[in-house]
Amino acid sequence: MPIRVVGFDGDDTLWHSETRFSVTQAEFRELLKRHVPDADVDARLSEMEMKNLSIYGYGVKSFTLSMLETAIELTQGRIPATDLEVILGWGKRMLMEPTKLIDGVEETLRGVSGRYDLLLITKGDLFDQESKLARSGLGELFLGVEILTEKNVDTYRGVFQRRGIKPDEFVMVGNSLRSDVVPVVALGGRAVHIPYEVTWHHEHVPDEELPKQGWRRAASIRELPELLETI
Amino acid sequence: MPIRVVGFDGDDTLWHSETRFSVTQAEFRELLKRHVPDADVDARLSEMEMKNLSIYGYGVKSFTLSMLETAIELTQGRIPATDLEVILGWGKRMLMEPTKLIDGVEETLRGVSGRYDLLLITKGDLFDQESKLARSGLGELFLGVEILTEKNVDTYRGVFQRRGIKPDEFVMVGNSLRSDVVPVVALGGRAVHIPYEVTWHHEHVPDEELPKQGWRRAASIRELPELLETI
Repeated sequence: MPIRVVGFDGDDTLWHSETRFSVTQAEFRELLKRHVPDADVDARLSEMEMKNLSIYGYGVKSFTLSMLETAIELTQGRIPATDLEVILGWGKRMLMEPTKLIDGVEETLRGVSGRYDLLLITKGDLFDQESKLARSGLGELFLGVEILTEKNVDTYRGVFQRRGIKPDEFVMVGNSLRSDVVPVVALGGRAVHIPYEVTWHHEHVPDEELPKQGWRRAASIRELPELLETI
Repeated sequence: MPIRVVGFDGDDTLWHSETRFSVTQAEFRELLKRHVPDADVDARLSEMEMKNLSIYGYGVKSFTLSMLETAIELTQGRIPATDLEVILGWGKRMLMEPTKLIDGVEETLRGVSGRYDLLLITKGDLFDQESKLARSGLGELFLGVEILTEKNVDTYRGVFQRRGIKPDEFVMVGNSLRSDVVPVVALGGRAVHIPYEVTWHHEHVPDEELPKQGWRRAASIRELPELLETI
């Protein structure tokens, strides 16, 4: 079946995202070290994010709230409010940063948009994602935008139904095996995995759980036009 | 043109929402009064929310972040982190509260769902809204769900296009003149306004800006079935 629709993940597939979290997390680590030199700040923040995921969902606002809670808990309430104000400021900075496109994205999307219907399929905070898309300058290239609270078999099935897409005419392109590859291939679609320089631990998939076929790996989005013709 | 599709707002139309904000805001006022007895806490929080709206968008997480920032600013950084932890806890409580349906909603929706296609069209935080809908038990009654960052002429037009809806076969039902009535009527649709006991100041519309026709007011959602036949 020839490909008709290509879905693209946003964060770390079209634009840099994890790096802005990493930069902020390094600053957070430094700030906390001044109060609790021996604490494993990264581990505690990561635990807090996982604990809060079912209440807050994904995104920068959730991350900011988890940083604040971690800071208060790790210092047993001794951290001054002025330091917490600094953390609030980091959250805002992340939300207002310009959308930095990944190398090759703009040319590639303009190239393939004439041949396929393009969808942006991303998860996270609705407001932040729409704002990033608006600032990316790529909005007009997408036939539609789907912002999901989670990317799994059920939510991809919902997208296919809403938009009248048959799985075998669909390819998903993204940096996460867990969110962009595994559920799409399970539904009978195909996928192209383009790893990003940093991967959030939560997104890792053990090798034995990866599908045997139905997906390919690319080193850069620039390889996409050719892959879409042969996948 | 007979009505084919009925859109429903969620917060304060189908389920109570503003009351949970009011209750938390009263607690916030009490907490702050202990540190800054003379401050106009409500006014300062409201200013902060408006200032942050273009960065955070709507929703409980945004409200929590604005409460924290207001508390730090009003106390000039003197508020102890343990009090800020209490505020974080209020945000979580709001996000986890059971969805309390407004009186008459369930029977009315079950009644009209056989005759019209029902859409949930709500704004706010994606994760929180989906979570509330899931807990409401109403999910199966809706043909589709649209969660928008803002409700205005552009975003309603997007819904109409995506879903192949002609404005003159559409009625929007909601508690906000600004979000549920004015933009829909401007596009040629119709609307039913069901005021809620509390209205957020941001949602007020001056009388002279209200459309002259194309909408009706109901005291309760129970009046809807009859209104839909005569509007």
